[in-house]
Amino acid sequence: MNKEINKKAAEIFQRIKKQKPLVHQITNFVVMNDTANITLHIGALPVMAHAKEEVEEMTAMAGALVLNIGTLQADWVESMKLAGRKANSLGIPIILDPVGAGATSYRTKTSLELLQNLQISVLRGNSGEIGVLGGVRGEVKGVESIGDIKNPESVACELAKKYGCTVVISGKRDIIADLNNIYYVDNGHELLTTLTGTGCMATSIIGAFCAVEKDYSLAAASGLAVYGLAAELAAKKAKGPGSFKVAFFDAVYNLTTEEIIRGVRIVKAK
Amino acid sequence: MNKEINKKAAEIFQRIKKQKPLVHQITNFVVMNDTANITLHIGALPVMAHAKEEVEEMTAMAGALVLNIGTLQADWVESMKLAGRKANSLGIPIILDPVGAGATSYRTKTSLELLQNLQISVLRGNSGEIGVLGGVRGEVKGVESIGDIKNPESVACELAKKYGCTVVISGKRDIIADLNNIYYVDNGHELLTTLTGTGCMATSIIGAFCAVEKDYSLAAASGLAVYGLAAELAAKKAKGPGSFKVAFFDAVYNLTTEEIIRGVRIVKAK
Amino acid sequence: MNKEINKKAAEIFQRIKKQKPLVHQITNFVVMNDTANITLHIGALPVMAHAKEEVEEMTAMAGALVLNIGTLQADWVESMKLAGRKANSLGIPIILDPVGAGATSYRTKTSLELLQNLQISVLRGNSGEIGVLGGVRGEVKGVESIGDIKNPESVACELAKKYGCTVVISGKRDIIADLNNIYYVDNGHELLTTLTGTGCMATSIIGAFCAVEKDYSLAAASGLAVYGLAAELAAKKAKGPGSFKVAFFDAVYNLTTEEIIRGVRIVKAK
Repeated sequence: MNKEINKKAAEIFQRIKKQKPLVHQITNFVVMNDTANITLHIGALPVMAHAKEEVEEMTAMAGALVLNIGTLQADWVESMKLAGRKANSLGIPIILDPVGAGATSYRTKTSLELLQNLQISVLRGNSGEIGVLGGVRGEVKGVESIGDIKNPESVACELAKKYGCTVVISGKRDIIADLNNIYYVDNGHELLTTLTGTGCMATSIIGAFCAVEKDYSLAAASGLAVYGLAAELAAKKAKGPGSFKVAFFDAVYNLTTEEIIRGVRIVKAK
Repeated sequence: MNKEINKKAAEIFQRIKKQKPLVHQITNFVVMNDTANITLHIGALPVMAHAKEEVEEMTAMAGALVLNIGTLQADWVESMKLAGRKANSLGIPIILDPVGAGATSYRTKTSLELLQNLQISVLRGNSGEIGVLGGVRGEVKGVESIGDIKNPESVACELAKKYGCTVVISGKRDIIADLNNIYYVDNGHELLTTLTGTGCMATSIIGAFCAVEKDYSLAAASGLAVYGLAAELAAKKAKGPGSFKVAFFDAVYNLTTEEIIRGVRIVKAK
Repeated sequence: MNKEINKKAAEIFQRIKKQKPLVHQITNFVVMNDTANITLHIGALPVMAHAKEEVEEMTAMAGALVLNIGTLQADWVESMKLAGRKANSLGIPIILDPVGAGATSYRTKTSLELLQNLQISVLRGNSGEIGVLGGVRGEVKGVESIGDIKNPESVACELAKKYGCTVVISGKRDIIADLNNIYYVDNGHELLTTLTGTGCMATSIIGAFCAVEKDYSLAAASGLAVYGLAAELAAKKAKGPGSFKVAFFDAVYNLTTEEIIRGVRIVKAK
């Protein structure tokens, strides 16, 4: 256990509670309620707004912007670009979740466009999605990653270099890479895979952490560890995915600094 | 305890169960599932429909129309106006929730447009939103009200006069004002603030109450008191926002006339 | 108890767990989270995608396509047709849920258009909706069926003949009819009527069953029986609609082959 890094994670977590940053999310219809709730439970303020008439103004008030293409359509993608450019001009971090990249060419193309046209701070996906965006063959069935890609660290590092961002590959062991650092996060629980939107919720949590911590790879690793720790605590009370979800929301809300210092499992590999 | 008013609240509640009014809701993507469920649990029938091809026909069947701009976009606003004009022509009450008014100029402008072009029966918001619409400086961060406005009663009364409607400011003590009456509602629980959409759900409940009671300020006060009472009962079983939400839905569904007569705390101040 | 048919139902259920078919759903905003979750819990993979740029490609990967008009709008209906034609060209079953048909002419017209332009495999609705589509007077209030239609079997059989599909009328006793078969399903629980989206979730479950079983009326009957059985098991732990929903998701996830063989109540009447 790296006590130093655990303390940092707990400290960022405390900063969210104190600053209550606004996290502007242009996201998908399936998970909006869940991502709004988890953002609130961690201590930040969520806002969902996608109309071209207001996204720039909303983003300008936010500590972070989350873009998630889970149920993308053309006008929403335009709003993502509008909001994204505003975020870039103000130095507000953007977290991109390329849901289902690889499943359809529209999703792959849109993800790449957003990566190329905006300065993304954190790109978070499963191994299939990130593999596709990294040009190796990830297999994506709908929005699920099927099978693992080879050398995920190299893929993450190459993408991080190409786009100057932090790249997160979620999985049993999360990989977080930027130009200079690699972290692994070993928190989490299998029950997360039985619910829809758990990837999207992780992305929202990363948004909350990046809103208060400019070292984005550290913020992403801390957010994922805290998220996974809450899942571990919740799993003890779960009898299936329904009761797990309830316990998970309770756990995120009730997490203490002490539990985080004791429970997060972040490995700094580089 | 004002036993007379509590009995009235319970009586309106019973009328919902008996008449099962349809509550047509043009609302936001984040809360649709929750507002549909709470409308069902209180005893009314929810329907969500926003296409310009059908909103007038749907509204014509409804006992109340709920308009909520939480994730507004231009064509939905047009449908709100279409549905609203139909509701006005048939004397069906409209309940407006100006979610995030003040956060962006688009939300403020749209809320004012709806207030000016339609005869709204009940306007319900938090103090930031209502403050902005009343021309005093409410502070809104995303969709959350930050800090309280001064003299909320005066703001509510002035808006009520200006638009000929009932104005509700939700808060620890809810304020309900129309031209001739002021009510306070002291029911509620802090856990409501840990969940997304609890303001929107309160608005839907007011919709159900207004569908069966033409004294809209009394209906709004009764609805809010019943809603807050359910939250109080649920809080006893909650270990956090996840389990609170579950218990809250159970409580709304299981509420009895007796509990309402005993438990609602409505003060008629004028 | 027809042990043979129960074994078949259990066998189809096992096939879902093994094959994990993708179920592409173009559905409504109210229920997306719930239908995605229940699809996952039964063992299939849900994907929601509605953009004209990608629906054909997504459908082509799927084992079944679910079309649900609960919050329809013109461009989504166009995407349903695009996806539907692709499904037809590839022999992928389409399950249609005509939510609120009869409530507005737009919903009735759209349902009939989809039935006429696409080869639907399973049409599932409540008695009001199916009655309207069958040309007898079903009464629909919003999205709820009010009162029962006369001779529902004849209506189902006539529609099945007219459109060459399986027709399901959900109710206390579900009716499943195609050209040659009639099944009844007696599983279910009254608490299902206290939640929004339980019809939509049943449709998604039928989608998962049809993705792995080409005898669509058997698949629909099996899916409904399994769905209703999970509701029965969940009801034992429920204190209201909130806790019922949680227990229901747990129950769907935890169902075993043995419970299904013992618990489903399917009657083959023809």
